[in-house]
Amino acid sequence: MISDKMKNLVANNSAIRAMFEEGKRLASIYGEENVFDYSIGNPNVEPPENIKNAINEILNEESPNFVHGYMNNSGYEDVRDEISKFLNNKYKLDLSNKNIVMTCGAAGGLNIMLKTLLNPEDEVITFAPYFGEYKHYTNNFDGKLVIVKPDTSTFEPNMDELREKITPKTKVVIINTPNNPTGVIYSDAALKKLSSILEEKQKEFNTNIYLISDEPYREIVYDDVEVPCILKYYKNSFIGYSYSKSLSLPGERIGYVVINDDMNDFENIACSLNIANRILGFVNAPSLFQRVIGKSLNTEVDVNIYKRNRDLLYNHLINLGFECLKPQGAFYLFPKTPIEDDKKFCEDAKKFNLLLVPGSSFGCSGYVRISYCTSYEKIERSLSAFDKLMALYK
Amino acid sequence: MISDKMKNLVANNSAIRAMFEEGKRLASIYGEENVFDYSIGNPNVEPPENIKNAINEILNEESPNFVHGYMNNSGYEDVRDEISKFLNNKYKLDLSNKNIVMTCGAAGGLNIMLKTLLNPEDEVITFAPYFGEYKHYTNNFDGKLVIVKPDTSTFEPNMDELREKITPKTKVVIINTPNNPTGVIYSDAALKKLSSILEEKQKEFNTNIYLISDEPYREIVYDDVEVPCILKYYKNSFIGYSYSKSLSLPGERIGYVVINDDMNDFENIACSLNIANRILGFVNAPSLFQRVIGKSLNTEVDVNIYKRNRDLLYNHLINLGFECLKPQGAFYLFPKTPIEDDKKFCEDAKKFNLLLVPGSSFGCSGYVRISYCTSYEKIERSLSAFDKLMALYK
Repeated sequence: MISDKMKNLVANNSAIRAMFEEGKRLASIYGEENVFDYSIGNPNVEPPENIKNAINEILNEESPNFVHGYMNNSGYEDVRDEISKFLNNKYKLDLSNKNIVMTCGAAGGLNIMLKTLLNPEDEVITFAPYFGEYKHYTNNFDGKLVIVKPDTSTFEPNMDELREKITPKTKVVIINTPNNPTGVIYSDAALKKLSSILEEKQKEFNTNIYLISDEPYREIVYDDVEVPCILKYYKNSFIGYSYSKSLSLPGERIGYVVINDDMNDFENIACSLNIANRILGFVNAPSLFQRVIGKSLNTEVDVNIYKRNRDLLYNHLINLGFECLKPQGAFYLFPKTPIEDDKKFCEDAKKFNLLLVPGSSFGCSGYVRISYCTSYEKIERSLSAFDKLMALYK
Repeated sequence: MISDKMKNLVANNSAIRAMFEEGKRLASIYGEENVFDYSIGNPNVEPPENIKNAINEILNEESPNFVHGYMNNSGYEDVRDEISKFLNNKYKLDLSNKNIVMTCGAAGGLNIMLKTLLNPEDEVITFAPYFGEYKHYTNNFDGKLVIVKPDTSTFEPNMDELREKITPKTKVVIINTPNNPTGVIYSDAALKKLSSILEEKQKEFNTNIYLISDEPYREIVYDDVEVPCILKYYKNSFIGYSYSKSLSLPGERIGYVVINDDMNDFENIACSLNIANRILGFVNAPSLFQRVIGKSLNTEVDVNIYKRNRDLLYNHLINLGFECLKPQGAFYLFPKTPIEDDKKFCEDAKKFNLLLVPGSSFGCSGYVRISYCTSYEKIERSLSAFDKLMALYK
C-alpha cells in the first residue's frame, strides 16, 4: 500500500536493521565494552558547556513567545546577521542576512536547495566516495544522481570524468569537504579546476550549473589546515552547513544555507528557499537552537579529542600494513581493504567484534570506513582486534 | 533558473509579501497598537512555565550527548512510550511506542505520511474551508488535491459530495478538527458517517483509503467539548499532532504522528514513515524538545485566555449583525462577509486598520477568517473599527 518510491527503501531497510541487531547481539554475548562499533557518525565529544549557558541566558532574558514562536521561514534576522558577520570575518566576504537561510541541519538545507533547483530528470553530479543520502535527496525531486568515479590516489574530484559527465541536463554538482568518508579537504587547486570546468560547461551548454558545498565537517579539521571557501571560487555556489558536528548537536537539526551574493537569479532563489523550507514541512529551523547558535558562533567542540583518536588508530593501521590517506578532517579513516571484496572484509571484521562500513556503501568498493568518533580507551582496546583481523590475510 | 514547481509559488509570494508590507506601512503611520492584525496564527498565550523547568531539568540531569544526539529516526523510545501511555489513558486505547513517530510539527508529519502513501496522480481529498498548505504538501509528491465544497450550514464534511468525489485514485482523505478556519469540531455522527463512506468505497474499488486527522488544535477547545478520537472510527487512520498551539511552541517544530494499530500494512507504513523522516531531511524531530514533551504531557496553555477573546469578539460581531457559527475550538472566527466579495471586504477592512484573511484563501468565498490569538486589550480597541466597517454596508 506504500508508494513505489518507498517500497524499495523499506525492503532494503531490513539489511540496515540486521546490522544494528547484529551489534546488539554481539554486545549481549561479549559485553558492550568489547564490541567496537566503528560504523556510526554520532559525535562522542560533548557539546561545549557554552551551549547550556546560552540556553539558560535565552530562557531567562528573552520573551518565551519570541524564543519559541514563528519567525520568517528563513530564520530570525538577527541570528542570520550574526552568522553573516561571522562568515565575513572568517573569509573576508560581504554577506548579509539575505544570504543566509536557517535550516534543519545540512539534510534540510540540501533538500530545500534541490527542491528549488531540480526539474524531473535533471542531473546532479557528485564524486565517489559519496554520502549515500544524496541519492535519496535527489530522488525526492525526481532528479538523477550521476556518480563520478573515485580518484583513489588523492580522493579529490576526478576532473576528467567530471568534464565528460556534464550534460545540458546537469543542474547541480555536490561536493562534500572535508569529505565523509575520506577526511580529505579539497585543495585550492582542486576547487579552481572544478570551478573552471563548470564555467566552461555553463558557456558551452548555455545553462546554469549550481555547485553545492556540503560542509558539516568544516570545523572538524586537524593540523591547522584551512577549508577554502567555495563562494570565492564560483558564482553559482551554495554552502550547506550544520552544527551537528562542530557543536555536537546532531539531534537538534540546526544548520544553514549560504547563497553566493553573485549567484544568477539570486532573488528568486532566496525566495524559493524560504518557501521550500515552509512547504516541505520544515516551516523553519528549530527556534530556540537558532537563538543558541546566534550566541555560540565562536564556540567549537574540542577537536583535539578527535585528533588523538585519529592518530592512535591511523598509526596502528599503517603499522599493520593498511594503505590509508591521513585524513585532514572529519572523523573517519578510509583505508584500502587488504582483500578486494570490502563486504567480505567487513564480515570477517565482525568475527573480532569490529563493526565497519564497506566502501561500496559510498560507491567506492575495495575500501572501508572506520568512524573514530568513539572513546580513546575503546579504540585502544580494539587495536588487538585489528591485529587479528589483518593476520587473516597474511 | 528555479524549478517549474517553485516558479508559480515564488511569483505568488509577492502578494503575501505585499500584505505583510501593508501591515508594516499601516503600523508606521498609525502606530502598532492601532493596527489590528487578525491575519496570523501565531499563539500569543505564553508557553506554560513548566516548559522552562523541563528544559532545565533535562540539561541538569541527562547526558548532553544523549539530549542533543541522534536517536532512532522515529524518535526516542521512552518519549514515544510516554505519549502512547498518555493517549491510551485519554482515549482508552492500546498503543505502544511502535504507533508513534515524532515529527517536526504537524507539517513534518503530513509530509512524511504523504511521502509514504502517494504515487504520482494519486488523489487526496479534503474539505473546504481547508488549510492552504495541503495543496503544497500534496504537490510535493505529485498527488492531486481534490476539494469537497463547504457545507456552510454546519461546516462539517459535505458527505454527499465526498461520496461522489472518491475514485479508484483516492489514496488519502485529510480532515482538520478542530478546524482552521471555522473552529468546528467534527461530531461523533459526522466521523461515523465519514468512516462508513470510506469503508464502503474501499470495498467498491478494492483500494485502501487512508484517513489523516490533522489535529494541531486538539487541546484548544472550549466549553468542555471533547474531540473524538479518529482511531476508534476507522482502521486506516492516522493522527497528525503538533505542540505548536497546545504548548505555544510553533517555532520548535515538535509533534507526532499516530499510526492506527489496526491499519492495513502497518509494519511497512511504520518503517516508511521512519525512512521518510530521514530522507526528506528532517532526520528526526528536534531532540531536546522531544525530551521536553516527554515531561510535559499533562501540561497545556491557559485556554481561557483564548476563550475570553473568542467571547468578546464573537458577541460583538453577532451584535453587529454578522452571521457566524460559534467556534468550539482553535482560535479563529469564520463569519460570513456582509457582501459577497470577501476579497473586497478585506480591502475595505484595511481602511480601518483591520487585517483579515478572505475565505477564498481557504476555498470558501463569502467568508472571512479572523484570528483572535492576540491580546484582549487589542481586541477591545479594535471593536469600533468593526463597527465602522459594518456601517459601510448598512
